[in-house]
Amino acid sequence: MRREIDLLIENVMILPVVPKGSVIKNGFIAISDGRIKDFGRMEERPNFNAEEVLNGKGMCALPGLINTHTHAPMTLLRGIGDALPLNKWLEEAIWPREAKLTAEDIYWGTMLACLEMIRSGTTCFVDMYLEEDAVARAVLDSGLRAFLSYGMIDLGSEDKREKELRITEGFVRRWHGAGEGRIRCMIAPHATYTCSKELLLASKALADEMNLMLNIHLSETKSEVKKVKELTGMRPVEYLESLRFLSPNVLAAHCVWLSDEEMKILAKRGVSVSHCPSSNAKLGSGIAPVKELISEGVNVSIGTDGCASNDDLDMFEEMRLTCFLQRARLLDPTAIRALDVIEMATINAARAIGMEDEIGSIERGKRADIILVSLKAPRLVPLNDLVSNLVFSSSGNDISTVIVDGKILMKERKVLSMDEEEVLKEASSRSKP
Amino acid sequence: MRREIDLLIENVMILPVVPKGSVIKNGFIAISDGRIKDFGRMEERPNFNAEEVLNGKGMCALPGLINTHTHAPMTLLRGIGDALPLNKWLEEAIWPREAKLTAEDIYWGTMLACLEMIRSGTTCFVDMYLEEDAVARAVLDSGLRAFLSYGMIDLGSEDKREKELRITEGFVRRWHGAGEGRIRCMIAPHATYTCSKELLLASKALADEMNLMLNIHLSETKSEVKKVKELTGMRPVEYLESLRFLSPNVLAAHCVWLSDEEMKILAKRGVSVSHCPSSNAKLGSGIAPVKELISEGVNVSIGTDGCASNDDLDMFEEMRLTCFLQRARLLDPTAIRALDVIEMATINAARAIGMEDEIGSIERGKRADIILVSLKAPRLVPLNDLVSNLVFSSSGNDISTVIVDGKILMKERKVLSMDEEEVLKEASSRSKP
Repeated sequence: MRREIDLLIENVMILPVVPKGSVIKNGFIAISDGRIKDFGRMEERPNFNAEEVLNGKGMCALPGLINTHTHAPMTLLRGIGDALPLNKWLEEAIWPREAKLTAEDIYWGTMLACLEMIRSGTTCFVDMYLEEDAVARAVLDSGLRAFLSYGMIDLGSEDKREKELRITEGFVRRWHGAGEGRIRCMIAPHATYTCSKELLLASKALADEMNLMLNIHLSETKSEVKKVKELTGMRPVEYLESLRFLSPNVLAAHCVWLSDEEMKILAKRGVSVSHCPSSNAKLGSGIAPVKELISEGVNVSIGTDGCASNDDLDMFEEMRLTCFLQRARLLDPTAIRALDVIEMATINAARAIGMEDEIGSIERGKRADIILVSLKAPRLVPLNDLVSNLVFSSSGNDISTVIVDGKILMKERKVLSMDEEEVLKEASSRSKP
Repeated sequence: MRREIDLLIENVMILPVVPKGSVIKNGFIAISDGRIKDFGRMEERPNFNAEEVLNGKGMCALPGLINTHTHAPMTLLRGIGDALPLNKWLEEAIWPREAKLTAEDIYWGTMLACLEMIRSGTTCFVDMYLEEDAVARAVLDSGLRAFLSYGMIDLGSEDKREKELRITEGFVRRWHGAGEGRIRCMIAPHATYTCSKELLLASKALADEMNLMLNIHLSETKSEVKKVKELTGMRPVEYLESLRFLSPNVLAAHCVWLSDEEMKILAKRGVSVSHCPSSNAKLGSGIAPVKELISEGVNVSIGTDGCASNDDLDMFEEMRLTCFLQRARLLDPTAIRALDVIEMATINAARAIGMEDEIGSIERGKRADIILVSLKAPRLVPLNDLVSNLVFSSSGNDISTVIVDGKILMKERKVLSMDEEEVLKEASSRSKP
C-alpha cells in the first residue's frame, strides 16, 4: 500500500540534531499536513505517493534555524553609525531614524529581513520592535514562523506605561496564533534600565494571564549594569530576581555581563538566554560567558540582533562566531564544539521559546521546518566532517531549499513566497535618511 | 582620438583604497597590458577602443584581496580534527595525513584553494608548505598571483638543515618570477621552535643573497612562547632580534603573544604581521593585539591560515572577524574601523610583501588585480554605507568578477581559468584518509 503525502525529500543527508550527533548519510523525509510524517534511511523507505518530490542529492537536511533575538525592520538601518559606542549609536544614529519610520516602512523592512532569513536558512525568529503589527503582516506574507513582541519602554512615566501595555494587549489579541499558528506573541518590557519596576511587574502579570513568554534585553553592556546598580542597588539579574520576574517563560537577550551569582540565578529560574555574538562584538559590548552559562545549566540559544548592529541576519555566521569567541576568550579549542552551536541554533532555541515539542529537530510528528544545505560549493569540499563543514565552512549562501510548516518557501535558491525584486526595490527606496 | 585598451569596466562604483576612504560612485577603469591605464568618474571618461567591456552596474570595484598567510593544499584536510589544541591537532590529526600526501594531491588541493580564493575575491596569496613545486604549478594554471615558500624545519639536525636549504634554493631557482612575474618566492624557516639557530641564520643569509623576503610563524600560542623561553631564555621576538633576523623583509604570521617590548621591536625593525583571526580563535590560540600593534606603527595584514584551521579561505570573514575580535576584546567599537580592515587586506598586505608599488590599490600604473563585488544580494540592501556593507554584510559569495594582471579569472561567478568540476572531483577523491 502506498501512503499519500504532500512532500517527499529523497537521497538527502540528514542531521536530525536529536538524538545528538546522529547522521543519516542517505535518507528520506516524508511530509504531510505541515508535519514530518516519517524519515529515515533510503533503503528502509516505505512506499509513498507524494504530491511533490525533491531530490536532495549533494545536500544535507537540517531543522530550520531559529534566530532568538532580532529587530527585523532594522534591515532599513543596515550599516548606519558604525564605530559608535552603544548609547551614542542608539541616541545619535538609530533612534532619530527610527522615529521617522512609518508602518509601511516597517512592513517592507521586515519583508527584506524575511527574504534575507529565508535565503540564509532561518525558519523562525523572535522579534521585538515598534509598530509590530506591520512586522506581523510581513511575517504572514513571507511564510516564516515568528514570535513577535512590541518593545515597551516607559522610562518611569505612568501614562506611557498604560499606553504601552494597551498597545501590547491589542497586538497580542490581533495576532497571537495567526497564520495557522505560525505567528505567536510575546510580552516585551524592553530592558531593566528603560522600564519602571511597575512596567516589569505588569508585563509579568500580563504574560502569566495570557500564558505568553517574556522577551527582554538583559545585561548587554557594562554601562547598563552600572546604571541599574545606581538605580536599584542591584545588578540587572539580581534586580529581576528581587521582583520575582524570572521563570522558564523568560527569554533574555545578550547576558554579556553576569556575576557568577547571576548565572546561578538564571539557571535556577530556568531562564533561556539569546546569545548575540556579532552584535556584542561589533558594538564593543563584550563577549558573553556562554561556556560558563552552559556549565551552570542555562539553556543558551543564538540571535543575530537587529541588522544595524551585525550587519546581516546569517545564523551560520553567528554559530561560527559563537565557537570562535568562546575558544579565543578561554584559550580552549574544546570550549564550544561545532555540534554545540548547531544545537543552540535549533533545539535549544526551540526550548527557549517553549516550542521544543514542535520544532528544533527532525523528528516524527514535529512541524516540518526544514532547510536543505547544498554541500557542493568549493569551500565545502571535501566533506571530511559534516558538522565541521556546516559550522566552519558554510554560510547562509549555501542554503538551497527552505520549508516551513511543510510549505516550500525557497526552492534551489528561488524564493517562492515573495517577489524578491519588489522587496529589494521597496526596501531600498524606504531607507533614505 | 580613441585610446586602444584591452579591457574597460564601466558604470562601476570604485573604492580605490588609496587615497584613504575615497569613493567614486559611478566610474570606469581602463586596463591594458595587465595594468591600470586610467580610472575615474564616468562623466570624465576619455574615448577608449576596448577589446572587452564589462558593465559594472550594481557592483563595486576593489583592489583584489591579498591573503598574507595560508597553506593552500590544506583544503584537502578541511574539517579534520576540530576541537583539539594546536599541538594535538598538528601531531594527531594533521601531520599523519600530510605525510601521506603526494605531489599530485598537493597540486589538486592547491587548485581547490585557488578556486575557492578566486570565488571569494582573493587575487594574491602567501603560501608556505611542503612540495611547493606542486603548489607553484597550480598557481600557474589558476591565474592567481602568489608568494610561495617551502617551509623548512630542521629540529636541530644538520643533515636535515642542509637538505631543507637545498630544497628551498632549488625551488626559488625554478619558480621565482614564473608566470610573467605572477609567482614570487620567499624563504621560510617554519618557526623559532622548529628551526635551529643555524637554520634561522642561514635562511636570513639566503634571503639577503637572493633578495627575497622571509616568511615565518611567530608567537602563535602561549605554549610556543614558553617553549622558546625554555630553549633560548628569550621570548620568540626577542630571540629573533638577538639573531639580527628581523627587518622589513620579514613577514611574521600570527603574533598573538607579544610583550610590549616585542611589539616595539617589530615596529622598530619594520616587520609586517599577518594576523590570522579565524585560525587563532578556532584553535584556541588567542586574540592578537592588533590594535596595539597598529598603535606602535607595525604594518598589519590579514591571513586565513590553512583551511584546516579556519575552515575556509574567505578574506571577507577575516576582515569582519578582525573588527569583531578587537572591539570585543577592548570593549571599544572604535578599536578597528571597517575601512581599516579593508586596508589591511589590500594595501597593507601589498606593503607586507614588498609590492606596494605594484598592487594593493586601484591606482594608475599598478597591476590590474581587481575584484567586482555585487551589491545586489538582499543582505547588502540598502546601501546606507558602502564600507560597512562590504565589511559587515558581504561575503566571498558576493564576488562577481575577478581580474589578475588584467586577465579575467572569473566573470559573473563563472571561473574561466580552470575546470571547476574537474577540480572538485579530483580534490574530493584525494582527501580520503
